[in-house]
Amino acid sequence: MNDKPMHGDCPNSGSNANTCSDDGQKSGYQVTIRLRVPKSMQLLDGIMELVEAAGGTIGGVVPVKNVDESERGINVRDIMFTAADSDHGEQVVNEIKRLSNVEVIAVSDRTFLMHLGGKIKVEPSRQIRTMDDLSMIYTPGVARVCKAIEADPSKARNLTIKGKTVAVITDGSRILGLGNIGPLAGLPVMEGKAALFKHFGNVDAFPIPLATQDTEELIRTIKLISPVFGAINLEDIASPRCYEVEERLKKELNIPVFHDDQHGTAIVVAAATKNAARLTRKRLANMKVVVVGVGAAGMACAEMILALGVKNLIGFNRDGAVHRDRTDLTAQEMAFAQKSNPKNFKGSIAEALKGADMVLGLSTGGAIKPEWLAKMKKNAICFALANPVPEVLPKDAKPYVAVMATGGSNYPNQINNALVFPGMFRGALDAQIEDITYEMQLEAAHALADVVSKADLDYDRIIPQVFEEAAHKAVAEAVMRVAKRNGLGKYKQA
Amino acid sequence: MNDKPMHGDCPNSGSNANTCSDDGQKSGYQVTIRLRVPKSMQLLDGIMELVEAAGGTIGGVVPVKNVDESERGINVRDIMFTAADSDHGEQVVNEIKRLSNVEVIAVSDRTFLMHLGGKIKVEPSRQIRTMDDLSMIYTPGVARVCKAIEADPSKARNLTIKGKTVAVITDGSRILGLGNIGPLAGLPVMEGKAALFKHFGNVDAFPIPLATQDTEELIRTIKLISPVFGAINLEDIASPRCYEVEERLKKELNIPVFHDDQHGTAIVVAAATKNAARLTRKRLANMKVVVVGVGAAGMACAEMILALGVKNLIGFNRDGAVHRDRTDLTAQEMAFAQKSNPKNFKGSIAEALKGADMVLGLSTGGAIKPEWLAKMKKNAICFALANPVPEVLPKDAKPYVAVMATGGSNYPNQINNALVFPGMFRGALDAQIEDITYEMQLEAAHALADVVSKADLDYDRIIPQVFEEAAHKAVAEAVMRVAKRNGLGKYKQA
Repeated sequence: MNDKPMHGDCPNSGSNANTCSDDGQKSGYQVTIRLRVPKSMQLLDGIMELVEAAGGTIGGVVPVKNVDESERGINVRDIMFTAADSDHGEQVVNEIKRLSNVEVIAVSDRTFLMHLGGKIKVEPSRQIRTMDDLSMIYTPGVARVCKAIEADPSKARNLTIKGKTVAVITDGSRILGLGNIGPLAGLPVMEGKAALFKHFGNVDAFPIPLATQDTEELIRTIKLISPVFGAINLEDIASPRCYEVEERLKKELNIPVFHDDQHGTAIVVAAATKNAARLTRKRLANMKVVVVGVGAAGMACAEMILALGVKNLIGFNRDGAVHRDRTDLTAQEMAFAQKSNPKNFKGSIAEALKGADMVLGLSTGGAIKPEWLAKMKKNAICFALANPVPEVLPKDAKPYVAVMATGGSNYPNQINNALVFPGMFRGALDAQIEDITYEMQLEAAHALADVVSKADLDYDRIIPQVFEEAAHKAVAEAVMRVAKRNGLGKYKQA
Repeated sequence: MNDKPMHGDCPNSGSNANTCSDDGQKSGYQVTIRLRVPKSMQLLDGIMELVEAAGGTIGGVVPVKNVDESERGINVRDIMFTAADSDHGEQVVNEIKRLSNVEVIAVSDRTFLMHLGGKIKVEPSRQIRTMDDLSMIYTPGVARVCKAIEADPSKARNLTIKGKTVAVITDGSRILGLGNIGPLAGLPVMEGKAALFKHFGNVDAFPIPLATQDTEELIRTIKLISPVFGAINLEDIASPRCYEVEERLKKELNIPVFHDDQHGTAIVVAAATKNAARLTRKRLANMKVVVVGVGAAGMACAEMILALGVKNLIGFNRDGAVHRDRTDLTAQEMAFAQKSNPKNFKGSIAEALKGADMVLGLSTGGAIKPEWLAKMKKNAICFALANPVPEVLPKDAKPYVAVMATGGSNYPNQINNALVFPGMFRGALDAQIEDITYEMQLEAAHALADVVSKADLDYDRIIPQVFEEAAHKAVAEAVMRVAKRNGLGKYKQA
């Protein structure tokens, strides 16, 4: 139906190259262009020749129903072609636009097409073929199940989706690197996360972006919608709100609550840190670590690196080193200053990096100058996790560091939260725990590190990649193991 | 794993026949019994012989992993068998319990088994096989989609699940005929409804039982969670709260809000009424209709019957006929008294039924005495919709009425909401409307009636049954048609 506009319909006007730009991670750029053409095979052939002549590779031509039935002589067609990159794609489109008799209705890119209709679906998990089926999954049979849960609410974990279902909740205040774009614009991220939850962790997840950024209202609303969920994944909530929301919900709900931006990142970073130290034969207790950007995620990472055994760690916020004599710190930063920076260092990042073993960036692209890295110890480790542009580009850091990791999939050693959250929640649901404890998170970090065997460990492999099933399994099992060890959840002694 | 208790595990103690009773709609009663037996094929054979000797039919034997690995000599087995009914099933189980060496761990019935793990699942709708896939559905590609929605929120309808997803929301205050059992115990009904939404209407629906019964908090919470949903199905909310919640949300949200208990029921009843009148050659304008039970659903039905053209309709609440001189009426009843009961009748149900053409019951089992029906007009119509026991049983009504309908699938002419809500929301989502108008609901009622062709219309077929695809399609098309006629939703003129 061509009355529904196509999406990612960027160079309809031929101007907005930005909206149509590539993801920066692929060589081929796939374009679908929707045309209105007079009924004539020859004309269509001509268009296809033109595309090929301009260097595009035709992927297919698909007839689309022309809903305007009065237009008997006009065909609507989708032509798919691959271009070298977005500029090239636009160039090909412009060639077509020059043709008379042909109207370009829309041009879409593959990323937008992947989002049409959203990225998850809800399906019945029982067959519904007969009245007999209906009478069991719905009235009248369902009434007995309701009564059983009313009599013993703990049965909901097995008799409903509660035991397998996670909410992915945001207030839209800090979506990716995009900032406060609101709950609706943040929804594609939450849906993507829900899709990953199922694919990697066999966890059913449903996105709930909330139309409020008031701390109390967020807490209250999440509590009110919690009956159907077995756990809550908080996502992309700005600090300091994220601290209060998570802390309160952990106390006030009896299901796990986990702000993935903080703790998921921390677990992957801790695993990568452990393996990088192992690879470079550094002892964690003797390492000097500098953290550039101690926001919510950076601080969680710093704390877990300390928990690994590192003693000398210095954190920087946008106003400089976090030390005990500063008067401008938030409550969280104040507490952090007490735990870190043992020598109360007050200098610059460049100065802190002198003799440092490792630098971890969780701030913005370009925040670390390559030349600063020159003064680091031998076999230096650099994790530059800002997205999409790292604090320092791998090629610029290369002369000075031995181990490099980023947040992107376009370099080796991707620090990817998706290594953690699917297994973390899978384990939490299976263990039927009420809380994901710090001990579980640390155990998960160690387990994730150990997925990379000694023989396998290398400068481009300090961390598993997200398609390794063993990684997700290791995380889930770590959670289960700690639950069992401490008699939590289903391992509780009656 | 046998450390997870089976559910619907009723006669574990052999006593609670009730919890294990049949649905009342099937002849065979399927039982699964989980046993701990010493490793010995002979013993298992003996058990199976015993079941057959007691009149049970073995459906299968399934080995279950014994998680207590210290018990090397013990097998755990599920034996499935079919009994004549629940008493017979229990009798067979008791025979097995008498065996020495055999321990009955649990006994489950089929309805409970159908509920294990819940009745819906969330799945990715895109393949996730490569880093390339990941980079489109998640970071970094997803960022461009977020930005496109930020720039134009209306794009969320196509670029996220919003355009196809419905919330099934309850406060647990009036679940089926069970009353105020709370949101968690009501969840199986909401899940069942979500499964039906997909199966019959290809609508993705997700259940959100809310842990509050405060009107303002319900309204506020539903508004806050609305970004991800394209429409709201309110379900099993007690009156008068349901009126206020629906009315306010219809005003304050720009997506359709529909309390199915009221309007879904009304649409099916109106369709059945129209066809019953057609079959018995009664003119709607001349009919006298008595409605027993004008609660939220009853009143909505009564109003739609009036909208069909019936003039003489008398409603009864628990305190008698609703008439204009009563001083104990709610605001809704007061308004209803103005629209109905044109002769301001003040007598009893029995008196009202004298000369009536139709009686509609939406109260409780047994509320209509069969002998009252004797004074109704020739070719009387009786809809007794209380569940699970109708106001009057079909066999008791039969001597007096020509057309009989109930709410159950165990009699002909089931008045089933599932005939309406899947198509209603399908149409609303497809038409991209902001509200399901009364005109659409009336059109749906007429369309549903017309699914039963003139040739097909009969005393046991005044309404389609829920497995007829044409019924759902007719309802969806009716909504679309009215939207188009009135230039609403996607048919709006720019």
